[in-house]
Amino acid sequence: MSILIKNANIIPMTEANSVIEKGYLVIEDDRITAVGSQEPPTGNYNQIIDATNNLVLPGFVNAHTHAAMTLLRGYADDLPLMEWLETKIWPLEAKLTKEDVYWGTMLAIVEMIKSGTTCFADMYFFMDQAAQAVEDSGIRAVLSRGMVGLGPENQQALKESRELVRDWSGKAQGRITFKLGPHAPYTCPPDYLHKVMALAAELNVGLNIHIAETLTEFEDIKRIYGRTPVAHLDHLGLFAYPTVGAHCVHITEEEIQILAQHKVGVVHNPESNMKLASGIAPVPAMLKAGIPVALGTDGASSNNNLDMLQEMRSCALLHKVNSCDPTVIPAYKALEMATVNGGQALGLPEVGILKPGFKADLILVSLQEAHMIPRYDIIANLVYAGQAADVQTVIINGQIVMENRIIKTFDEENVLTQAKRAAERLVKQV
Amino acid sequence: MSILIKNANIIPMTEANSVIEKGYLVIEDDRITAVGSQEPPTGNYNQIIDATNNLVLPGFVNAHTHAAMTLLRGYADDLPLMEWLETKIWPLEAKLTKEDVYWGTMLAIVEMIKSGTTCFADMYFFMDQAAQAVEDSGIRAVLSRGMVGLGPENQQALKESRELVRDWSGKAQGRITFKLGPHAPYTCPPDYLHKVMALAAELNVGLNIHIAETLTEFEDIKRIYGRTPVAHLDHLGLFAYPTVGAHCVHITEEEIQILAQHKVGVVHNPESNMKLASGIAPVPAMLKAGIPVALGTDGASSNNNLDMLQEMRSCALLHKVNSCDPTVIPAYKALEMATVNGGQALGLPEVGILKPGFKADLILVSLQEAHMIPRYDIIANLVYAGQAADVQTVIINGQIVMENRIIKTFDEENVLTQAKRAAERLVKQV
Repeated sequence: MSILIKNANIIPMTEANSVIEKGYLVIEDDRITAVGSQEPPTGNYNQIIDATNNLVLPGFVNAHTHAAMTLLRGYADDLPLMEWLETKIWPLEAKLTKEDVYWGTMLAIVEMIKSGTTCFADMYFFMDQAAQAVEDSGIRAVLSRGMVGLGPENQQALKESRELVRDWSGKAQGRITFKLGPHAPYTCPPDYLHKVMALAAELNVGLNIHIAETLTEFEDIKRIYGRTPVAHLDHLGLFAYPTVGAHCVHITEEEIQILAQHKVGVVHNPESNMKLASGIAPVPAMLKAGIPVALGTDGASSNNNLDMLQEMRSCALLHKVNSCDPTVIPAYKALEMATVNGGQALGLPEVGILKPGFKADLILVSLQEAHMIPRYDIIANLVYAGQAADVQTVIINGQIVMENRIIKTFDEENVLTQAKRAAERLVKQV
Repeated sequence: MSILIKNANIIPMTEANSVIEKGYLVIEDDRITAVGSQEPPTGNYNQIIDATNNLVLPGFVNAHTHAAMTLLRGYADDLPLMEWLETKIWPLEAKLTKEDVYWGTMLAIVEMIKSGTTCFADMYFFMDQAAQAVEDSGIRAVLSRGMVGLGPENQQALKESRELVRDWSGKAQGRITFKLGPHAPYTCPPDYLHKVMALAAELNVGLNIHIAETLTEFEDIKRIYGRTPVAHLDHLGLFAYPTVGAHCVHITEEEIQILAQHKVGVVHNPESNMKLASGIAPVPAMLKAGIPVALGTDGASSNNNLDMLQEMRSCALLHKVNSCDPTVIPAYKALEMATVNGGQALGLPEVGILKPGFKADLILVSLQEAHMIPRYDIIANLVYAGQAADVQTVIINGQIVMENRIIKTFDEENVLTQAKRAAERLVKQV
């Protein structure tokens, strides 16, 4: 299968602020084989896409979410954190079935594809269902079975993780990869984390963990273990394994250096951190230390959307006002966080850049909308004014997953119907 | 002209969190005549709209913008404030012609209608052109000729304002009202503000002014006049006139009381304040003091969009994280700021609520999108996940201005073309 995209404004993400005008891009099977600004090479393409009045750029990498939590969207908002978790989120979550996780993940995938996300990192349970949804939909994902070390299910989580890696790694034309998902230092005691590390070594996979999301966690870990969360995990040897750490809101300057030294992928979730009032992660300092901070939406119960365009904008705006400096996180940097840095953080270096040899994960975004005019700076337009509905066409692993806003790989209507039914059934049970 | 809307989920904004399920709403000419939840009254309606799977709510009131600055969108971003103004914005603005202001305002109106805004407050120049655009498009607006007291044009601004009020007040089927627009305390010395007040008394109109947008302004006014900005304006007697004050970022607790006592309408512009790193206005404290704080996008050169759904979301999220309290500005409060409070702040008490006798300014928003499912709380869905493109139909002053995303009152394509041409011509001149 070969595709030629022509007459495009291409943002390849190879160099700051670079845009190829009237460019072309060639896809063969799952990879990009050519990108240029002159006449496209002649060839027998299976499909030719005229991208006049469109931007072409890498699809967004949503580097931290809990996809099936779309089924909890709007179930509880504007509450104090523990009341929100204990009286609302956990009781409903306890009722989720395998089928719910499948349809909730599919609902999330619809929303992500329709807002330009081509790859996501997921941590939840019934992850065989999430893997099935990834296979069925055509999206790319890095999956983790969430592991909580405190309860009776901690051994089950290790067992399931082993089975998931065995059964699903590299499946769906290579679109599925796995990481182990120890939930957080406050839910996984050191002895459990050692078991997780042993399993990571055995299976040769990395780790996905929440770190220092709240001030309470920061203080509790310090009190219990005598070290702040990042230092605690470093002390345990966790960062010897390729690790992606979500949130990192409450971290010290020394901890930023630890994360940088160990090349830990950090995922910033500005909207979730704002909505739950968790705090503001020191992103400018982390970027300065050389950490390629990625972006995530977190779950739809705390955001309440999975829209990476909005996440980029919130990131850029939040850190400008927080640092009293309008030059902080300019548009291109926010876009880099949502693409290149996502691929790097998740251990997918062939994702997030449009360059020959890289995975053909890319999106076409309409410039022919009032909010995208004038076109002085199409990168600033995209980041500061772009909307999910501007995303016209989505290609993942060389496959056209959405074309002119119609999803091609599965029945969107059926997903919406099934997800609504699942939600209606769920609330009746609590 | 009469319209019946039926089978709608109506958010009337008459009571916190109230939603009328399977409701109807009747419009006669420019007003709402009935809202209810039972069978709609029988009648010979000119048009019947089936709003199944749609929300119906008041159109958004963008209570502070500079509409024609859409032509400066993306021209300069991520720069320090004074460099941004002096080297970029002002030189380009100086080249704007009457025709540019017309097409720039029309471009803004396209964007606003397509994101559900039915009324905006505008401060700029060539305001006869803005008025013409309002008349031509069908939107509602409160217009002000920006007045700077320092330069040679200060008398011209007074003269033009008098003529504009004479020629345009109440025009366009009553959709146009005027306020005088003294730019800010730091650009309008006391003697000039006294002239503006005398004119306001003569013409019986209110005032629209920027107040305390930056810390520099706060400190300069205090240094020069011995009072902080709000106290300074109060001392001059400005608040004896119905006043709407934009920004109010740097204000004291005493000044909040002054604003509340004088019923000054305050317009919060969270995204502009974040992007320019101006600071975070004490909105929760202002709301607590009884000020019905409204929302605005500010101009597209500092936002860079005019999307009130995003402005609501940014407002709710920003103040939660800033106050370390996730219960601050819940979804309904943000929606209230974007509707009811906008009408109140601008002196349009018949705008922003769906109730018999009120102006028929309302929007239909699709719930049939992945990001709007499930429907546990459709107000939270709208505020935290709603997208501009979900707005299907827009009715202003009883007229259908957009139907199923097609603008009915003017040629959208022509506006986009003319605005692009204006922008291309502009940048060639600087």
